[in-house]
Amino acid sequence: MTEAARSAEAHPFDDAVALKPVAEGVYNGRTHPAYANMVGPFGGITAAAIVRAVLDDARLLGDVISLTVNYAAPVADGAFEISLTPVRTNRSTQHWTVALTQDGVVTTTATVVTGIRRDTWSDAEITMPDVPPADAVPVRPMPDFVAWARNYEMRYLEGELPDADTGAQPDSTTTLWVRDQPSRPLDVPALAALCDVFYPRILRRKGTFVPAGTVSLSSYFHATAEVVRAQGDRPVLATARAGVFGAGYFDQSARLWSADGELLATSHQLVYFKG
Amino acid sequence: MTEAARSAEAHPFDDAVALKPVAEGVYNGRTHPAYANMVGPFGGITAAAIVRAVLDDARLLGDVISLTVNYAAPVADGAFEISLTPVRTNRSTQHWTVALTQDGVVTTTATVVTGIRRDTWSDAEITMPDVPPADAVPVRPMPDFVAWARNYEMRYLEGELPDADTGAQPDSTTTLWVRDQPSRPLDVPALAALCDVFYPRILRRKGTFVPAGTVSLSSYFHATAEVVRAQGDRPVLATARAGVFGAGYFDQSARLWSADGELLATSHQLVYFKG
Repeated sequence: MTEAARSAEAHPFDDAVALKPVAEGVYNGRTHPAYANMVGPFGGITAAAIVRAVLDDARLLGDVISLTVNYAAPVADGAFEISLTPVRTNRSTQHWTVALTQDGVVTTTATVVTGIRRDTWSDAEITMPDVPPADAVPVRPMPDFVAWARNYEMRYLEGELPDADTGAQPDSTTTLWVRDQPSRPLDVPALAALCDVFYPRILRRKGTFVPAGTVSLSSYFHATAEVVRAQGDRPVLATARAGVFGAGYFDQSARLWSADGELLATSHQLVYFKG
Repeated sequence: MTEAARSAEAHPFDDAVALKPVAEGVYNGRTHPAYANMVGPFGGITAAAIVRAVLDDARLLGDVISLTVNYAAPVADGAFEISLTPVRTNRSTQHWTVALTQDGVVTTTATVVTGIRRDTWSDAEITMPDVPPADAVPVRPMPDFVAWARNYEMRYLEGELPDADTGAQPDSTTTLWVRDQPSRPLDVPALAALCDVFYPRILRRKGTFVPAGTVSLSSYFHATAEVVRAQGDRPVLATARAGVFGAGYFDQSARLWSADGELLATSHQLVYFKG
């Protein structure tokens, strides 16, 4: 796909994850300047493109249930290829291995589990934080130099990006209402991207900029297709915090709820940081 | 490796994860009857064998930082092959893809990130639960038909395996002191296995047996080599709970602390269940 091929009407998100099939399980994509991060693209958009590829594959069985993305190296601006293999297809689950390459060199690996959801007993042990509705919370964008963040309408309830006066904080929790900007009905690729919408927790703890990048991200998708559809373009409640920092790494756990209070996804990542 | 080749002196755990290199990045192993589960081996021992393979590879850079294992199909009793590829080696991190096969058919896929730990700022946001020391808690084994569990000394603080009288429970949390049995100094393969030492959370919620199996497991290893060494053969404090159950799946998050109160690992999994 060339820049010229991008649709003038499409949402920037859909443009950014648009893929051209070139063989069975092989897709060509291209980084989108709107989703650029400090070094390479926003990790969430790479995760979303991988989910897009699996969903586009005719061999797909069921819904995306689990996704792990390993960010082995920054994706350079320009063309990339996603290749995916359904290494095992069972009666109700399917296991995929995925590689994102540029000029034949791996930048990203992933595994995806898809599966048929069935009607079973259900219960949530973790509940949505009790917060004001999205429209009662002011929109507060990230600084303008973070290109990808301009694609998200962010309404922080706690733990917004520190500024020069914030100082070190004792707790890394961030909670926000967030949706695509311009707004767009939620789907699983968009949810996969939202799982990575949090700035690095180390910034909040130190109260200053620290180079950091996700090494490995695992997201579990709990919402049925009906729940995702019912969400429409309303904001999602997203919260994340770190577990432990040390020896150059920290972990982060996140939860994303629908506007109706259903747990859409849980997501965990290990993050590299400097200093 | 044949059964006969197993060492009479070795700890059953080391026997179960013993691998024979047959080519660069290719190892032969064999399931161990002592680590059998209902269908196929204990998922933790498969994770441990994968970690063992990465640690045995001469190309290894750094420590095991992150591990994702996808249980695509049960491993049948008998021989298996683990093949691993360091798809990307950077200055301080290395990304591996792994497949476990039997007769050329994939049963398990994995990705591993290894990395050099550096001296950085450190802090724990989550703290060890305040519990009695291990020697004040009685050992309570799992039922004898769960073969693998006989390799662990389990001292439950809460949420032990339900029996016929337990009934449904409102909360899935299980917390226990646990170590290998016979005791054995902790290492990273053993820690990888311990991340999966919890019986399925759905059993506690329903108060009865429900068929369930891990689909995807991701573990983050926080402990430096010194912390792992300092642990020795003392029990680890392990706690796990579910997030949400529904449509045939639930998620579980676990934390494992050293006897000195250091967070050794955090681990998350998505689990399939029936009914």
